[in-house]
Amino acid sequence: MEIDKQLLADCHLIGEWQGIAVLLHKNSLMPWFILVPLSETQVFRELYELPKTQRQQLQLFSDQISFYLEKKFNSKKINIAALGNVVEQLHQHIIGRKPEDLCWPNPVWGNLDRSEQYASFLVEEVRADITRLLESE
Amino acid sequence: MEIDKQLLADCHLIGEWQGIAVLLHKNSLMPWFILVPLSETQVFRELYELPKTQRQQLQLFSDQISFYLEKKFNSKKINIAALGNVVEQLHQHIIGRKPEDLCWPNPVWGNLDRSEQYASFLVEEVRADITRLLESE
Repeated sequence: MEIDKQLLADCHLIGEWQGIAVLLHKNSLMPWFILVPLSETQVFRELYELPKTQRQQLQLFSDQISFYLEKKFNSKKINIAALGNVVEQLHQHIIGRKPEDLCWPNPVWGNLDRSEQYASFLVEEVRADITRLLESE
Repeated sequence: MEIDKQLLADCHLIGEWQGIAVLLHKNSLMPWFILVPLSETQVFRELYELPKTQRQQLQLFSDQISFYLEKKFNSKKINIAALGNVVEQLHQHIIGRKPEDLCWPNPVWGNLDRSEQYASFLVEEVRADITRLLESE
């Protein structure tokens, strides 16, 4: 099934590996990935609905992206959350946080009132990094 | 290692099973569990630090508690999050949400400005339910 329109509007689509779409939030003021597990037959809503292998894959990708946030963006704390109160389709946020960021120590949702775009070369750099990282998993 | 003091102040300790402490947030206006994976040798900070079996256990308990929230509290959406910007010790929130709750569709953190205690018999009821549920896992 497809990725929710709102998620696609808010994010750069980085790619899809093993049935999991990887998105990068367009707001460059916060390093913020969103993972969307896809299926040909249904739109997932809750984590417990995922088939076992896809859930393991989601966990593996979450870890890889957590390490990437720490290494590339110098993140000091990783926020991982599946909320879905606004966008129903199951999507997992993986957000790199640090004490000097714009909404620390609050969660980002509803507290990020400024936005800046990524330069396109940076999006391409992230795409190259993530592709290298997740293709080997 | 011990459970963070702030978590213990905010929650009722329901019990500990398989190295995972189960807490119920004291604010009865939102059905809200917090899972804290414990270790004798370290305080976990990030999900990726968990040993494999403990992480599987955390996932299993999250699912069981999600089903419980749906059944007992008629929750329509489950919010699952490990943030840790304020309390450093790794803890996973499992919150039962519904469109008529106090902060829908916003996340609960920072948006829940009222609080009501549980009657003690209700806490005991939850303890009995959760014990039955998690002891069999």
